[in-house]
Amino acid sequence: MTDRVSNSVTVLGLGLMGRALARAFLKAGHPTTVWNRTASKTDALVADGAHRAESIVDALRAGTLVVVCVSDYAAIHQALDPHVEHLDGRLLVNLTSGDSRLARETAAWANNHGAHYLDGAIMAVPPAIGTAEAVILHSGPQSDFESHEATLSALGTVSHLGADHGLASLYDVAGLAMMWSVLNAWLQGTAMLRTAGVNAATYAPFAQQIANVVAEWLPRYAEQVDSGSFPAEVSSLETDIAAMEHLLAESQAAGVSTELPRLIKTIADRAVAAGRGREQYPVLIEEFSRSSRP
Amino acid sequence: MTDRVSNSVTVLGLGLMGRALARAFLKAGHPTTVWNRTASKTDALVADGAHRAESIVDALRAGTLVVVCVSDYAAIHQALDPHVEHLDGRLLVNLTSGDSRLARETAAWANNHGAHYLDGAIMAVPPAIGTAEAVILHSGPQSDFESHEATLSALGTVSHLGADHGLASLYDVAGLAMMWSVLNAWLQGTAMLRTAGVNAATYAPFAQQIANVVAEWLPRYAEQVDSGSFPAEVSSLETDIAAMEHLLAESQAAGVSTELPRLIKTIADRAVAAGRGREQYPVLIEEFSRSSRP
Repeated sequence: MTDRVSNSVTVLGLGLMGRALARAFLKAGHPTTVWNRTASKTDALVADGAHRAESIVDALRAGTLVVVCVSDYAAIHQALDPHVEHLDGRLLVNLTSGDSRLARETAAWANNHGAHYLDGAIMAVPPAIGTAEAVILHSGPQSDFESHEATLSALGTVSHLGADHGLASLYDVAGLAMMWSVLNAWLQGTAMLRTAGVNAATYAPFAQQIANVVAEWLPRYAEQVDSGSFPAEVSSLETDIAAMEHLLAESQAAGVSTELPRLIKTIADRAVAAGRGREQYPVLIEEFSRSSRP
Repeated sequence: MTDRVSNSVTVLGLGLMGRALARAFLKAGHPTTVWNRTASKTDALVADGAHRAESIVDALRAGTLVVVCVSDYAAIHQALDPHVEHLDGRLLVNLTSGDSRLARETAAWANNHGAHYLDGAIMAVPPAIGTAEAVILHSGPQSDFESHEATLSALGTVSHLGADHGLASLYDVAGLAMMWSVLNAWLQGTAMLRTAGVNAATYAPFAQQIANVVAEWLPRYAEQVDSGSFPAEVSSLETDIAAMEHLLAESQAAGVSTELPRLIKTIADRAVAAGRGREQYPVLIEEFSRSSRP
């Protein structure tokens, strides 16, 4: 598939994020058609050179590439279901927040109506859109991504994860789990060290350094996960647990929260109880892969 | 205080870590005296040029700088209590694993017997000792650290955290909390993505990148903690919670563990319930600083 109208883009949905997307396309010189349920949101963009679609049908007719960023997946169907005959031959790039199941269902729905479909996830705040800092993940057929990659690159650092439409949502939440975990570990350390009179600014560079060092280990640790073999090259889980007890005891003694230390130890304890104490940390993939009791 | 015998070092305790410490001092050219409760452990080091102390008194007499690395703090007292009169004028650098309370108590004990005292924490495995990768933290009087910093540098990247002897232990466990949190978040994401056929090696560089990006935010977020003011410059806790629900739902749908996603959301939910939903993530310092119910 190639662009029928070269580089032209339609943006459906003009919330804070949708407006940022449209502005980035305009700034990169792409003819940009905009549509929003509440038409007044288009005014500032029209002043910046965007074309206002008078109807959703006009918006879909304006070009091949249709970027969707609305409040949720229900809003997509509300807007497009009455006009599905105009989806034929379009590439929908759906950057609406959702989950992997919705992404796969929406892909099937779009394909049924003759549209190509990429599901995307924006790992950035609106002000970052249009800069390299804005990471935007896409999943779906690689050829659809490649045919419009140049245009989509106006939005930030774009990447393609694979053909499974659910991947963008999965990578998104996995990345967020990393984000919150780094922040929570930093807050745990900050809370402990403040009890000894160390301010947050003093501790932050140390926490940053540790996060960077440990992140470097991940590719090597991933080899253990993929091979299913976890020899204790560097340290064993049993040794780790002794140190986890120190973390828990220090948190208790400092009078700060013990929730995070306790979770860390609980998961490792279970693996040791399952006989994995002489193996290395990535053996915990077995604990993380197991469904929790509801 | 200055070295009375220039650059000479005594190492007490020759487990795996103690032997690595002694070898690093020898390699850096420092006259090194070694002692261990079980004398046979000294053999290989003596072959490498170490001086074997025939008794703990000989070991203490050999020089000013005495590095201690034994199994626990009780072992320190067992070895040194009968010979405290020989501690006078020594600098004990205690690299034994312990906690901040033990560190402070041991400092008082050493000072009572006329010794200077630094408490240390080794953030490295034995094979890394003697390389820049081995991070070794010290706390106690700055002058004691500075007077022997050049010699201690034979062990790795050494640093001084402050006068409070408990700081090395606190930084140690805080750093470990970061280590386990990065690993756990990576395992959570890996477990989720494996259900979509993505192998660990494919996901690891993405996780690494996110950890690095978020770690960069810490100094700026630390300013919010130190100022006690948490304006939602980038994102509000309420917005985060919507995404936390996605993480939880995706984990459930994938049939993997929900423990970590649930903890992340539980802590943030509490802050929102306390009226902090319009503020930014570092406001959670208030949750982390609060003692958990036992």
